[in-house]
Amino acid sequence: MKIIQTTIPATIDYVTKRSASAASNPEVDAAVAKIIANVRANGDQAVRDYEKQFDNIELSDLRVPQSELDDAYAAADPQLIDALELAKRNITSYHTKEKQFGFVDAEQPGVMRGERITPLAAVGVYVPGGTAAYPSSILMNVLPAKIAGVKRIVLVTPPHHDGLNSAVLTAAKIAGVDEVYQVGGSQAIAALAYGTETIPQVDKITGPGNIFVATAKKMVFGQVSIDMIAGPSEIGVIADDNADPENVAADLLSQAEHDRLSRPMLVTPSADFAQAVSDAVDRQLTTLPRAEIASAAVNNQGFIAVVPDIPSAFTVMNAIAPEHLEVQLPDAAQYLSLIQNAGSVFLGFAASEPVGDYVAGPNHILPTGGTSRFFSALGVADFMKRTQFITYSKDALAREAKAITTLARTEGLEAHARAVESRFRNDQ
Amino acid sequence: MKIIQTTIPATIDYVTKRSASAASNPEVDAAVAKIIANVRANGDQAVRDYEKQFDNIELSDLRVPQSELDDAYAAADPQLIDALELAKRNITSYHTKEKQFGFVDAEQPGVMRGERITPLAAVGVYVPGGTAAYPSSILMNVLPAKIAGVKRIVLVTPPHHDGLNSAVLTAAKIAGVDEVYQVGGSQAIAALAYGTETIPQVDKITGPGNIFVATAKKMVFGQVSIDMIAGPSEIGVIADDNADPENVAADLLSQAEHDRLSRPMLVTPSADFAQAVSDAVDRQLTTLPRAEIASAAVNNQGFIAVVPDIPSAFTVMNAIAPEHLEVQLPDAAQYLSLIQNAGSVFLGFAASEPVGDYVAGPNHILPTGGTSRFFSALGVADFMKRTQFITYSKDALAREAKAITTLARTEGLEAHARAVESRFRNDQ
Repeated sequence: MKIIQTTIPATIDYVTKRSASAASNPEVDAAVAKIIANVRANGDQAVRDYEKQFDNIELSDLRVPQSELDDAYAAADPQLIDALELAKRNITSYHTKEKQFGFVDAEQPGVMRGERITPLAAVGVYVPGGTAAYPSSILMNVLPAKIAGVKRIVLVTPPHHDGLNSAVLTAAKIAGVDEVYQVGGSQAIAALAYGTETIPQVDKITGPGNIFVATAKKMVFGQVSIDMIAGPSEIGVIADDNADPENVAADLLSQAEHDRLSRPMLVTPSADFAQAVSDAVDRQLTTLPRAEIASAAVNNQGFIAVVPDIPSAFTVMNAIAPEHLEVQLPDAAQYLSLIQNAGSVFLGFAASEPVGDYVAGPNHILPTGGTSRFFSALGVADFMKRTQFITYSKDALAREAKAITTLARTEGLEAHARAVESRFRNDQ
Repeated sequence: MKIIQTTIPATIDYVTKRSASAASNPEVDAAVAKIIANVRANGDQAVRDYEKQFDNIELSDLRVPQSELDDAYAAADPQLIDALELAKRNITSYHTKEKQFGFVDAEQPGVMRGERITPLAAVGVYVPGGTAAYPSSILMNVLPAKIAGVKRIVLVTPPHHDGLNSAVLTAAKIAGVDEVYQVGGSQAIAALAYGTETIPQVDKITGPGNIFVATAKKMVFGQVSIDMIAGPSEIGVIADDNADPENVAADLLSQAEHDRLSRPMLVTPSADFAQAVSDAVDRQLTTLPRAEIASAAVNNQGFIAVVPDIPSAFTVMNAIAPEHLEVQLPDAAQYLSLIQNAGSVFLGFAASEPVGDYVAGPNHILPTGGTSRFFSALGVADFMKRTQFITYSKDALAREAKAITTLARTEGLEAHARAVESRFRNDQ
């Protein structure tokens, strides 16, 4: 891996240069816009036509019967079921603590004010087809919605000639998905946004997908809510000579294997440790099944930065705002106060990043590309909304009427002032 | 106003047809993209050039000195200051109750998990120039950020030959804005998103603006966070014969006067009441300063729907998902459970909607166009982010290692499995 050792400002300047996100593609935009309009106008028939056209599959039923989920679950490797159930328990216990509640405030005479926090009515989760099937992501998308109290959780996934991926169906059953539809691409997003005869309209669509799915999600945003558009995976590690270079190398590679654009990053005060990790990465790469992808990520996107001391390492990492941040230092929890920007933090030598990908409980759908400055992990709050409410007695309104009419007239909004004064028009 | 009386499904079909939102304009898009690129490359000089080009103002200083805010405050009408201070107190006491806190979970041996909720570092608030200056919106944008704990709150507003609006400067001082810059349009949004020599880069940009501002906000989304793109104002009223038709008409007009596309809506079980409100609207319109705007909204966007009963009225309103919802019924608070979709709710005869626009305390920046199905009022949560964290002992990792490696290998991610196994490679 490339090792850089320069001033802190120059290091920050280097490390915050990320691959530009994919520019929008006018041809894709036009194609997707047409698909959305067609599904909106023609419903199920349009969905079926696109599945025939794109996947060469003629679907009789868009809905996947519950019996297919039951069969997949019954046939699944018990070890997989145990693993998914452990993940479900931990994700559920973690996210349950995220649940927020509203309030009522009755502190002023004649005034009650408050806020209700209630679940969205229906949510759609997109699950990509193809070779990479990620049952863990189904748990990460569905369980927070369940805990929020969403009554209708719909999963869509592209049809396949050999049937749907059995691990996906098993995870959907364990997560408690209400309905599964075998439809993919932009047509699936359009169906969820506008509804068809068969597929229900939802309030929010989450889950990753290819450029057609991501473009469709952007286009229907506002008609429904969507989650973030995720970029390539990132892992930042802060470590010193106390850490194990083999473990740090293995953690860096765990994210490097996702994508050629994934970004493995180590910031350390030790030049010796930097070299040891670099050597370990090269060695471990040789035996990885996804070595070609991981190599591209390591060599083109990754780096090791050597900095003067541990506080500087946190300064650099806060500028990067990585998706995942490992602190491989003794007594790692003491450094939490130094972390301003990171999606998910892994403290200590045993807290390997894949623990969080699968079983620890925090969400693995995280802000990338420096957006942990202002975005957060997917969570229960993403599946709820707040509704404000007030009630005023006439006496309470009288106390504040002058302030309201003053502000309304300052802003040139006479009808606002008159609405309040109307309540007192028959009084002395 | 148009009175409609038909079946509930037909009513819903009618009332949920909204004006289409403005389609994106390729010429505006191209112009804004160029402005953003230029400000990003050339900083302050580009900002100054655009202010000269668009507003014909040569700026020596982009920063507005604190003394200008102090002078505006000193010269302000004491009634305006009292009104803004009352609003500030109520907005602060309400939004303080919105503040959410993280958690720590240490329920499993060797495992600590948790979530920190921390403020964004810096926020920019856009305040439009021109005739409509809204000091109330400054409080609604700035105070939740203050309560969240944002350290740097920056206000940008277009320069003006006669100096900045004094009510805006007074509100900025009362709200506790940290810095004010006289720059507007796309160039202001670009400056906040990327930073210039003078204007700081922020993490989130909020506040309304014209199409150039809205387009720029959409384009920099991802580089920074933004608030919702607001549509025309909406007010829905549910009322029966117990309500005062003059008051209901006045409340409908308070939102109608905002914009020709504003949408005033009444749903009532009483045909007589419907007619009385319609007559009162026509009568009150004749004396309104903004009658021309309000008439357009009433006649082209507004309606009164007569439904069989009160529960049906809530069914219709939930389908509309209005920005503001008034319940002008006796014992109005009892109906809260029937309200699924509304940005802000006003319960009872004295709870006129402008109370919420100005002084009650809930936020007046609200989801429009039916998006209260899934979006919420601007609030403290919009200025904070969540950071997940875990720590695992080696024993805790050992307990869950098999589940992690099983899931990783099911997903074809061998390096994920090896990162965990690496921790145990020297063990027996």
